[in-house]
This record gives sequence, C-alpha cells and structure tokens, in this order.
Amino acid sequence: MTTRRPLAPGATIGILGGGQLGRMLAMAGSRLGLKSKIYSDVADAPAADVAAGLTVGSFADVEALAKFAAEVDVVTYEFENVPVVAADACLAVVPVFPPRAALAATQDRLIEKQTLAGLRIPVAPHKAVDTADDLVAAMRELGAPLLLKTRRFGYDGKGQVRVEAGDDPVAALTALGGVASIAEGMVRFDREISVLAVRGQDGEMRFYDCPENRHAEGILRTSAVPAQVAPGITALAQAHARKLAEALGYAGLLAIEFFHIDGLDGGTLIANEVAPRVHNSGHWTLDACLCSQFENHMRAVAGWPLGSTERHSDCIMENLIGHGVEAWEKLAEEPGTAVHLYGKKDARPGRKMGHVTRVRECKT
Amino acid sequence: MTTRRPLAPGATIGILGGGQLGRMLAMAGSRLGLKSKIYSDVADAPAADVAAGLTVGSFADVEALAKFAAEVDVVTYEFENVPVVAADACLAVVPVFPPRAALAATQDRLIEKQTLAGLRIPVAPHKAVDTADDLVAAMRELGAPLLLKTRRFGYDGKGQVRVEAGDDPVAALTALGGVASIAEGMVRFDREISVLAVRGQDGEMRFYDCPENRHAEGILRTSAVPAQVAPGITALAQAHARKLAEALGYAGLLAIEFFHIDGLDGGTLIANEVAPRVHNSGHWTLDACLCSQFENHMRAVAGWPLGSTERHSDCIMENLIGHGVEAWEKLAEEPGTAVHLYGKKDARPGRKMGHVTRVRECKT
Repeated sequence: MTTRRPLAPGATIGILGGGQLGRMLAMAGSRLGLKSKIYSDVADAPAADVAAGLTVGSFADVEALAKFAAEVDVVTYEFENVPVVAADACLAVVPVFPPRAALAATQDRLIEKQTLAGLRIPVAPHKAVDTADDLVAAMRELGAPLLLKTRRFGYDGKGQVRVEAGDDPVAALTALGGVASIAEGMVRFDREISVLAVRGQDGEMRFYDCPENRHAEGILRTSAVPAQVAPGITALAQAHARKLAEALGYAGLLAIEFFHIDGLDGGTLIANEVAPRVHNSGHWTLDACLCSQFENHMRAVAGWPLGSTERHSDCIMENLIGHGVEAWEKLAEEPGTAVHLYGKKDARPGRKMGHVTRVRECKT
Repeated sequence: MTTRRPLAPGATIGILGGGQLGRMLAMAGSRLGLKSKIYSDVADAPAADVAAGLTVGSFADVEALAKFAAEVDVVTYEFENVPVVAADACLAVVPVFPPRAALAATQDRLIEKQTLAGLRIPVAPHKAVDTADDLVAAMRELGAPLLLKTRRFGYDGKGQVRVEAGDDPVAALTALGGVASIAEGMVRFDREISVLAVRGQDGEMRFYDCPENRHAEGILRTSAVPAQVAPGITALAQAHARKLAEALGYAGLLAIEFFHIDGLDGGTLIANEVAPRVHNSGHWTLDACLCSQFENHMRAVAGWPLGSTERHSDCIMENLIGHGVEAWEKLAEEPGTAVHLYGKKDARPGRKMGHVTRVRECKT
C-alpha cells in the first residue's frame, strides 16, 4: 500500500479523545518509546495523566485541531464519533489512521449497515426512519417489536428505544429527540462474539481470538476468550473483518460485533456494530497476549510491523461499571486477576470505571 | 506492621528519579488508577512523558523536595543513590517506601556488606580501603587480583577497577577518584542469579522466580527465567531476601544479586549487590507475569494487597544498550518478542535504551 517509513521511537502520536481507550493507547505507545498527545473536549481527561501533552478543545474547532496536528507526527482517535471535519483538519497536516473512510462508514448506523451489506456481510433487516410514517412502514415491514436507534452518536445502549406493536410512533421518535433514525428488526441470537483485527499500513492483517461478549442494559459486561463457537465461525468473522478492512483501506485495530445463531455448519453470523478503533471486548489482550490490541493499534498507526496476536491464557474480562469499581481492593487481592482502573473521579451509574481480567491456563 | 488504609485510586505517588525504572513504575501505577509525579534532576526525564507531573530539582534541594512531597500521597524512588537527606525531607511530609533504612543500608557498599554479613547472608571477602596502605593490606589479606570499588555511587560497572598483583596501589585509588572504597576478593562463581522479592506494608512477602543473569563490561545483558539452579537454591535466595527485608522493615520490591557456585546440595550463594527498588533483572515480569515487579512495587508503596508473582511463560530478557537500540524495527518483527523502549534521545555507549523479552511456553 505504502512505503512510508515507520515512525522512529521518540515520535509523537496525537490521539483524538482522552477517555480510557486513549489512556490505554497512550500507555501502549509508551512501551514502544512513542509519545502521545491527547486532544480532548474535557479538561480532566483520564488519558492526560499518562501522556506527554493535553490540548483541551472542541471537536468543531478546526483551527485548534490543525494546531494540535502540527505538534504530532500522526493522528489517531479513540472513538468513532470524531466529526469527519475534525479528522480532515488533522489530515491536512499529518496522516490520520484509521482512514477517514472508516469514520464516515461507521459513525452513521445506516451507512454502516449499507457498507456491510454492500460487502455481503450479513446485517439485521433495517430501514431508515425520518418520520412517523417511516416508522409505521418499518414496523409493518420488519415486524414488532423492533429497535429504533438514532443514526448517529449512539453508544453503550444510548440513543435507542425498543418499539412494541401498539406503541405510538410519534412518541418513539420524540424519545430519541426526533433525529434521523434507523429501525432494526429484532434478531434472535444465541450469543454475541466480536472479531478484533489489526491491519498494518502495508496491508498485513492479524487477528486476535474472538471473545464472547455479554451485555446488560446496552453496556458490555464481560468478554470471555475463547468464545464457544466452531473454528469455522471464527474464520468467517475474520473473513468479514478482512473484507471490510480492505474495502476501507484500513490501518489500525478494527472491531466488529456479531450476533451468532446456532445452526448447521457452526451457525450464522450477523454483524451488529463496527468500531474503527480499539474495543472494550479486546481489553483482555492486555493480560493474555504478549502484544495487546492497544499496542497493535499504535504499531499500525506508527507504520510499525504488527505484533503477535497470540494468546497465552484463557481469560474473562469484566467491566467495572459505576459503583462496581468500589470493589477494587477486594479485586486487587484476587489471585489470577489483573485490575485496571481508568483514573475517573466520579463513579456515575453506567460509567466504565475500570475492568478486571481473570486469567487461567489455556485449555484450548 | 501497620493498619494504614491503602491509597485509593486517584491518589498520587511521588517518584524520586525519572529514568526508565521511574517510567515503568509510573506506567504500572497508571494501570491501577494511581497517578505518578516525578522528581528528577534532569528536565528530559524519560518518566515525565508518562506521568502526571514533573519537578526538576536537585536531590540536595530539601525545600524543593518537601514541596514535591506535599503534592503527593506517598514517595518512592527508582535508584538507591537518593541521598538520605532527600528521603528525610520527603519523610517529614508523607510516608516514604522503601524505608530510609533500606537506602542507608544499600548506598554504601561497605555498610551493605556489613548489613548482609550481620544477617548471616554470605558475602565476598572484603575490606574497607581509604588509603594506599589499606589497599596493600587488602591485597595481602584477600589476594590479587581483587576488585576495588567506590563505597558509593557505583552502578553498571562504574566506580570499580580490577587490581592485579603488581599494580600500583596509589594509581588504583586515584583511578577511582581517591574516595572511600572497598576491596573485594574475587569470587569464582558458575552463574549469577537474582531474587526479586516484594513485601507489603503488612509484612506479607511474595517472590518472583529467580532469573539467571549475564553481565558484560559491568552491565546486565540478559536475564533468563527460570534460572538453572536447584529448587533449594531458589528457596535459599528467597530466605535471604526475607531476612533482609524483615530486618529493614521493608515495603516494596527488593532485589539481591547472588553469585551461585555449583556444589553439594545445589551449591552455594554469595550475595553481591542489593537494590532497594525494582531491578533490571526483573523486567521480564512485564511480559511473563500477570502482575509485574513494577506493579507490585507500586501496590506495596500504596499499601495495596500484593499481586500475583506467578509466571505464565519462560523467557529471556535482553537489554538494548547504546546503539543496540537501532535494531528496534527488526526486533519489533520478531514473533514472541515484546519490545520496550525508554524514550531516551541519545544512544550513548553503555546507556540502557530499552529491552526486549523473548517469551516461550513454560517448560517448567
């Protein structure tokens, strides 16, 4: 793809976003002698305490973004809702990875589904919903109940409502703020898995083992590795990720969440969500792999050779959400358990405060 | 020992010294949600890029040190040549771990040997040397060749000369700057190992497996785990570390380098050097253990429960010294190899620029 030289140790990677993902990216870069600077719209960004610099600014402030980009050698991001104009403001100054095409394809649920479907990666039946009439039509076509989701800015179960057969379509749309939305037919699935793929600037791809994920109230609770799926399903998930990454000219860590439905030949996969970034379901790689998803993302962004995605242990990652983090001292005593805390001050309900990885010897 | 509560996540640990050890300590603290602030006598401290703050000042400036201590919740250090007055300046404000007794006992080679000998931990035959006459007497008593070392400020083979039978004692002393010295009889040994022990503020102790270390030109080159010694020798090394740690009222990571001499019952150990801090021969714990020496040190300093010292892989750590770091790109491609670079600008000869850990499945 490119013959650009890798960034030498001592180079600086700019990270848009200063949450726990930015924090763990910066820490992984530090292992490699790469500095990180953080651009965040809040001053008490968790990533700032572990990085070489922090710029506080709006993601709409293209001048501030261009100035930030001028202080770094390459830009990446920790969340897919970075406005494309923000990425473009940086791109005018330095390379940005993952590429803007990945942002454009994933920050709108409708475009994401269209992108996946265009690559023959199965997705849930869906329909654009801009008006109450659209929703009525969607309920007829997709059946009820269905999920109504905002096309943009949804995460951790935010920006979505379940619409039952008798519900008022106007009320449902109003509940989401009356913004452009998408209706998704309900998928009966047996489990959720995700694929964690990393692609280098030279096009090389590597895959971590797929974790099996459990959500509650729209928030990821646990990721267990290995997932209880047939090898053919893992291979299928990886093939889907490869297709998408190649179509996007991707560099960095790419995650796709899938619904897995039991059936013949190992069953079926339906893509649910794409994340053009490191992913919560890959946090276990910090403790069960020699090279974590964070390090591999930084390697890809810096144009380095990819690191090993091999796993030396079975494990289960559990998020510490809201007041759940108050168990930290007890968790710190648990044998075989790695504790990760994100340095966030307020343990608000639903807020990801940390995670633990419980590791045991490989059975597989 | 104490019923002090552990520092809560969000607390700040002050680290005296901003080299690679301080850097890796700060990174390990970050995993636990603990902030680090660095006190360094140089502005471009490798640790500063990964920490929440940097104070540049002299270790003789007790006012600056007291001010630094007032900004943190506890103080630790990354090198044993922190002047005791510097530790005391901090100690007047916040707790300091490892305790000042550990600094006092280890920053002078003569006192270190006397401390060890007093605990019946075997050391090389030695003699204080302040004058040429002392050296002549030492050569008679200990034989020649012998090693003449400054009592203070030696590291990585600095501050020592080999004195042969016919050598001029005045010249030898002058070569070391004419400072208070110690003569050590040569020990014929078969290998070097080290013990990496961690002791909590509650007195609990845990031990990592002993690495086998190879030096060249006075600088550690490789540490391999497990060491090729009988289990009884590992137990003996650990017993020595326990005795020393308990005598010092220690909290934190404690390393002792030993000469191992083959013989009956697994052979003999002679203590060579004590480090009241994380140690280069324990860097492999970052990649072969769930909880590294750095994290366990930070846990002990913060009054947390100790983490597991179990090892999931065999490995060999190799230092990248001086221009050796220029192989980083090739090393980054090596399967099963973790690359760690310290963010130092100038690859001066003899300077520790990074390390790699080559990991393979446990045979033992």
